[in-house]
Amino acid sequence: MVKFEILKVDKESRARVGRIYTKWGVVETPAFMPVATQGTVKAMFPKDLNEAGIQIVIANTYHLHLRPGEDLINKAGGIQKFMGWFKPVATDSGGFQIYSLSDLKEVKDDGVFFRSHLDGSYIFFTPEKVIDIQIKLGSDLIMVLDECPPYPISHEEAYKSLKRTLKWAEKSKNHWEKLKLNDRMIFGIIQGSVYEDLRELSAKELIDMDFDGYAIGGLAIGEPKVERDKIIKKMGEILPENKPRYAMGIGYPEDIIEAVENGIDLFDCVLPTRNARTGTVFTSRGKLVIKNASYKEDFSPIDEECSCYTCKNFTRAYIRHLFQAGEILAAMLATLHSINFFANLFKQIRKAIKDGNFKEWKKEFLEKYNGKQ
Amino acid sequence: MVKFEILKVDKESRARVGRIYTKWGVVETPAFMPVATQGTVKAMFPKDLNEAGIQIVIANTYHLHLRPGEDLINKAGGIQKFMGWFKPVATDSGGFQIYSLSDLKEVKDDGVFFRSHLDGSYIFFTPEKVIDIQIKLGSDLIMVLDECPPYPISHEEAYKSLKRTLKWAEKSKNHWEKLKLNDRMIFGIIQGSVYEDLRELSAKELIDMDFDGYAIGGLAIGEPKVERDKIIKKMGEILPENKPRYAMGIGYPEDIIEAVENGIDLFDCVLPTRNARTGTVFTSRGKLVIKNASYKEDFSPIDEECSCYTCKNFTRAYIRHLFQAGEILAAMLATLHSINFFANLFKQIRKAIKDGNFKEWKKEFLEKYNGKQ
Repeated sequence: MVKFEILKVDKESRARVGRIYTKWGVVETPAFMPVATQGTVKAMFPKDLNEAGIQIVIANTYHLHLRPGEDLINKAGGIQKFMGWFKPVATDSGGFQIYSLSDLKEVKDDGVFFRSHLDGSYIFFTPEKVIDIQIKLGSDLIMVLDECPPYPISHEEAYKSLKRTLKWAEKSKNHWEKLKLNDRMIFGIIQGSVYEDLRELSAKELIDMDFDGYAIGGLAIGEPKVERDKIIKKMGEILPENKPRYAMGIGYPEDIIEAVENGIDLFDCVLPTRNARTGTVFTSRGKLVIKNASYKEDFSPIDEECSCYTCKNFTRAYIRHLFQAGEILAAMLATLHSINFFANLFKQIRKAIKDGNFKEWKKEFLEKYNGKQ
Repeated sequence: MVKFEILKVDKESRARVGRIYTKWGVVETPAFMPVATQGTVKAMFPKDLNEAGIQIVIANTYHLHLRPGEDLINKAGGIQKFMGWFKPVATDSGGFQIYSLSDLKEVKDDGVFFRSHLDGSYIFFTPEKVIDIQIKLGSDLIMVLDECPPYPISHEEAYKSLKRTLKWAEKSKNHWEKLKLNDRMIFGIIQGSVYEDLRELSAKELIDMDFDGYAIGGLAIGEPKVERDKIIKKMGEILPENKPRYAMGIGYPEDIIEAVENGIDLFDCVLPTRNARTGTVFTSRGKLVIKNASYKEDFSPIDEECSCYTCKNFTRAYIRHLFQAGEILAAMLATLHSINFFANLFKQIRKAIKDGNFKEWKKEFLEKYNGKQ
């Protein structure tokens, strides 16, 4: 039932436009998935996500398991109905959050033992359990449990961690086979830090397991851009063309464009939402710190080229005032704009690939974005 | 240019429907004015206020003078353009805020001397200055500077304070006459605490000064409902019928209905917005504390009878989850609903008066609202 098809591949790069068909609707790729960690894209009404052209969001297994629990969400009819977003939803496995948020107790071959960051309760996540939770949540794109080592990490340690992640991936796939679900996809997650040989090993083993899609994890966690680009490039070369590819946590417009060029189809990142809440927004001419005093009497919109509700009705001076005054509307207007900016970025990317002028579009976009035009 | 007309008066009470025509559009009365203290109705997009049927909001002179300043708002084209709300805006004079928020230094016959609650700077407000600020802000309904004594207060002290407020009102009116502005209205503010004789004195003197409208201040500040109702009733009897009447800070649906019955046309209150942000919402069956554990698995909307975006798409269980998780969307959805509830309450009030069945409507509404049906 769920399938992925490629509509067009760029002649000069690996960039491609495609479609993922889910029971909650179609996702046109390359696609941006705003982060809905706790079952909400922070400070956004689902109707406004929809209006921006967002087609899928990504929620978090770790957070939703802790609160309100997958059983409650299942009773509500799944995460889509629960959060009033009647479109596809992906879920991260929670691996990253276990390592970054929880009080991690022990990593074993059959799973990971940790304490909740909310109430200190002891929890044991196995690869199988994490899939079961995501099924109960009603996720359309499921991620396997993985270990997320920090950056930097030695080759030896990265290898050791990767072997465990691969073991978990195998358990995940075996469990998944038994469930015989064809109305959602399961993604394997490639790890291996910045080591090309480990990334290649990781990818090849996962490809052998035959997942529905492949996620590239453990990037955008502090490594230099050159290392990140190298890994993304390698992945673009070796991942099977007929499966969707997802670069987790990426990121900045320039990184996204680079990854699209290397054949990546799916992205998620907290940047448009988190930065907006602290007063930094994205525009066609780069980032803008709206709280700066220089915008005090600036009666132009955040972005002259943007046609979102924020840019059509409110000035920089007003939004700056709202941030100064600590008003909730500040976060609402800034987030609405930045989500529209990212949604538009992806519309432009898809159009450029379809029109066969991705390289030209990229050059023009980045020149303006980097203030060189 | 600005005028008030009465379309129909209820046969069994003083309730009336009317219209205030301003350069920013028409306000159908009785009308509810959501509070936009700092130039935003907290957690609401102006487009959603508009969609709810809100026709006017009330901003605050004290707050906007301190930040961002009336000159900035004037440069922006007035408060309507500044806040992206292209409809009428009333402004409170700031009297109440000087007494409740600032470090009050001295009240003199020609004005009030206080320190900003934001940066401690010294400010002197005169009746004339407060009008000038409101004109710069672009207010459609201007309030005179008044002294707001707390409750309780002795008759003697209330009288002393009232005399000063009346002196200020006279200065205000004299200043206003010189300005010869016919594109906005100025309201006198009736004070006198819970003393009928003082309220009557206050009203009569203000009526003699011939303001465009009359506001009843100093209520809903802790006095018993029976005292409040007594004053409102008295005002309904003696205020001129051809001028709009505004009950400041009222309030709860039952108080609003009582006041409408006594001929009040305008209302403002922080209840729908402030309570929503802390998890209490208004429904056709009374108040509901959405954070209560009893709603944990309640998959019904906040109010079955409400057709707002919140009630059409989200459950009590979900909104409770958002409050538990500290999400901004909690405040957004709860506020959106309660503003819709108040907007609908006023639509029902206007319709009932027009249809000539206000008393029956009141009985039915309150029975359901108070859980007796």
